[in-house]
Amino acid sequence: MKTLRVPEATIIRLSVYSRYLEQLDRKGVITISSVEIADGVGVSPAQVRKDLAYFGEFGTRGVGYNVRDLMHYTSKILNLNEPWPLVLVGAGNLGFALSTYKGFNNRGFSVVGIFDNDLTKIGKKIVDMEVSPPEKMPEIIAKHNVKIGIIAVPAKAAQEVADLMIKNGLVAILNFAPVSLNVPEHIELRNVDLSVNLEILTFNLGMRQFESRGK
Amino acid sequence: MKTLRVPEATIIRLSVYSRYLEQLDRKGVITISSVEIADGVGVSPAQVRKDLAYFGEFGTRGVGYNVRDLMHYTSKILNLNEPWPLVLVGAGNLGFALSTYKGFNNRGFSVVGIFDNDLTKIGKKIVDMEVSPPEKMPEIIAKHNVKIGIIAVPAKAAQEVADLMIKNGLVAILNFAPVSLNVPEHIELRNVDLSVNLEILTFNLGMRQFESRGK
Repeated sequence: MKTLRVPEATIIRLSVYSRYLEQLDRKGVITISSVEIADGVGVSPAQVRKDLAYFGEFGTRGVGYNVRDLMHYTSKILNLNEPWPLVLVGAGNLGFALSTYKGFNNRGFSVVGIFDNDLTKIGKKIVDMEVSPPEKMPEIIAKHNVKIGIIAVPAKAAQEVADLMIKNGLVAILNFAPVSLNVPEHIELRNVDLSVNLEILTFNLGMRQFESRGK
Repeated sequence: MKTLRVPEATIIRLSVYSRYLEQLDRKGVITISSVEIADGVGVSPAQVRKDLAYFGEFGTRGVGYNVRDLMHYTSKILNLNEPWPLVLVGAGNLGFALSTYKGFNNRGFSVVGIFDNDLTKIGKKIVDMEVSPPEKMPEIIAKHNVKIGIIAVPAKAAQEVADLMIKNGLVAILNFAPVSLNVPEHIELRNVDLSVNLEILTFNLGMRQFESRGK
C-alpha cells in the first residue's frame, strides 16, 4: 500500500487550524473561508488550501468551510477522536507545569501518572495526583492503556527514563530533556527544546537589523 | 536590497544543529561530515547541506566541517553572539518552570525579571529572583536593555500582558498562553503550544495504524 507522506510542517499547521476552528466554534461561527483561516493563524490562504488538500476535498466554492465539520475532520486526521492518557516522568518545575498544562486537557490529553525517583518528591501531590516511584509505572500504564510518555527529567537521566518507558510498552515519547535519545525504530520520538522558539525570534530580530542596515 | 527568505523549518533545524555541534565540541570532536550531523539529529544529509547552503559555503569536500567553526557560525546566524536578557510575565507553574529552564541559559538567554499581578505571588522568590508587580517592568527592561518578553499567564490575561510589553518597548514576544494575540506588524510574535508536539505523535501513531491495516 502506498504511504501518504505528509510534511511535518503541514501537521503542525493542521494542529494550529484545528485549535483555531475550536475557538471559532465556541464563538458560534458557522462557516469560514480559507482566507479567514489564513488571516486568523498567520499563514497564506494558498497554504491553508494546500495543507487541507493532502486529506481530500473540503469546502464549497464561494461558501467556504463549515467550521464544525472541518474542526471534526482536522481532529480526526490528528487522531484526537479518542482521549490520550499520558505518563510523565520528572516531578521538577517543568514536570509540575506540564502535568497541569491546560493546553493538554483542552485537546484530550490527560496525565494519569507522574513519576520520580527522588524520595523527597514521591508522595507529593500535584493537584490531585501523587508522585509515584518508577516501579509503579507498569501498573498505571496497564490500567489506563497508556501509549505516550513525557520525559521532563534532567539531561543525564533522560536515556534511562526512555529505556524504562519502552520496556513498559510505551510507543511514543515526548522528550523535554535537552539531549538526543537513542530509541528503536518502532518508537515515535519527539524532542522539544523550548529555546528553539526563542532562537527563531532572535534570528528574525537579526535579519531585521541586517535588512534595515542594507537600505 | 534583496531580502533573504529562509524557511522557518530551516531556522528550527539550524538551532538543532547548533546545539548538536555544541555537544560534539564539549566531547572534543574536531571535524564532522554532513552525514554524521544528519545521523545525530535525525534528518537527511541532503537536508543538512541544503539548510547550510542558505548561508554560504561550508566545509571541505572529503574532510567535512570543522565542528567549532560551524558551531560559531550557526550561533552567529541565529544571532546568539550576544546574551539575551528576558522578562517573563506569569509566576504560575509554567512561569516558574520557564524561569529556571536550563535549556535557556545554555543558549545565552537569561530571565532578568519575573512579574505577576497576583498579590500572593509578588515577593515570592524563584531561585534568587523575586516576583515583581507589573509596574516594575519599565525599570527592569531599561536596566537590562531587554528586547524579548515571555508570556506565561492564563489565556484571558495574555492580550493585556502583550499590550503592556509592547508599550514598554519590547520588540519580540514568546507566547505560551493558548490564545491568538493581536500585535502590531513590527513586533515579532511566536506562539508556543506544547500540545502541538503531542499531536504530531498521535498523528504518526494514527498513520502507522492506517498503514498496517492496509498491508
